[in-house]
Amino acid sequence: MKRVNISNNVIRRMPRYLRKLDDLTYHGIDRISSGELGRQLGLTPSQIRQDFSCFGEFGQQGYGYNVQKLRDEIATILGMKNEFSVILIGVGNLGRALVNNFGFENHGFHLKAAFDVEPSVVGTDVGGVHVFHSSEMLDYLSRNKVDIAVLSVPRRLANNIANNIVDYGIRAIWNFTNIELDIKRDDVLIEDIHFLDSLLYLSYHLAAQAENEEN
Amino acid sequence: MKRVNISNNVIRRMPRYLRKLDDLTYHGIDRISSGELGRQLGLTPSQIRQDFSCFGEFGQQGYGYNVQKLRDEIATILGMKNEFSVILIGVGNLGRALVNNFGFENHGFHLKAAFDVEPSVVGTDVGGVHVFHSSEMLDYLSRNKVDIAVLSVPRRLANNIANNIVDYGIRAIWNFTNIELDIKRDDVLIEDIHFLDSLLYLSYHLAAQAENEEN
Repeated sequence: MKRVNISNNVIRRMPRYLRKLDDLTYHGIDRISSGELGRQLGLTPSQIRQDFSCFGEFGQQGYGYNVQKLRDEIATILGMKNEFSVILIGVGNLGRALVNNFGFENHGFHLKAAFDVEPSVVGTDVGGVHVFHSSEMLDYLSRNKVDIAVLSVPRRLANNIANNIVDYGIRAIWNFTNIELDIKRDDVLIEDIHFLDSLLYLSYHLAAQAENEEN
Repeated sequence: MKRVNISNNVIRRMPRYLRKLDDLTYHGIDRISSGELGRQLGLTPSQIRQDFSCFGEFGQQGYGYNVQKLRDEIATILGMKNEFSVILIGVGNLGRALVNNFGFENHGFHLKAAFDVEPSVVGTDVGGVHVFHSSEMLDYLSRNKVDIAVLSVPRRLANNIANNIVDYGIRAIWNFTNIELDIKRDDVLIEDIHFLDSLLYLSYHLAAQAENEEN
């Protein structure tokens, strides 16, 4: 895989391409031009060709893209073939929603274990995943290679847990705690899910509309 | 409020400023320069001044920003003072997580009602919000002004529900169903939460690191 000078904006568009290609496959479309793909995504054809050219040559002049092949290339680019292993820390409502509805395995990730302190869930299986007591977590990490931790614990616990697990080999944290983690190591990837940001994007526009209507 | 030619990028940064200012307040800081704010957010001071200047004049030369006042201005910009009303459609694990943990009221939103078909939740209160049967939803909307619908139903139901509620006055949909909604009206705001996109951002970087280590 060629990965040269790739901006975050390009990387952030890749999952959108993936979703669109899955959608096309679902609708039985097996080939698409960069022009049509651009139209459906609100991007210019040259933007699309430029994005893909960061990683190699995927289209064919005059033919366009083979949907399945391009989907496959993008899945590889995005690490979906790497079978990264995942643990879930915190099996509250949100943790449960992720285990039951998100479909880690469908996207190429292995959700190997979950951890919580709540007696009613420790020792049970949630969505096919065993829930261990959190006190077993560091021992588990020292015996198993885990790439990604999903952090969905109460926010007061977040920083402490995050700093512990990165000392035990966790290289990426998918952070649902809504606080900015303060990790002492700078080689750890963190991706924050801030639900509020997207709700405020809606309410910004509603507020702007309301002002227009007043004027 | 002045809102002139404001790009989506500026709007998307506003919630980040809000979070940072809340964080500063929490740490007892009541005044900050654009330089220091920029350093903490990874933005240039001129970028910050330019962002705020879209909405008016908030800082004071040589003094910097009053943290509480700027926070207040941004909350107004983002519609947090408008008391927008919200309903939740779908009280599964994710819906429950939102009601219990998200804190709509803390952010200036009124979560007025929830809807589901599941007999075990219909008629109960979840996090202080009453759960009605979904068959009552359109009637509820015809009697109550609701601005925003949070959609967390199984994806096969999503489009049908979305198209029904927009005919009953819903102007914005916060979409957790992971499908791209196909709404017949173009005056409805939709904000999609795609969990997978952010997990793939992590796995992209892990995959890139793995390739570097091989070479």
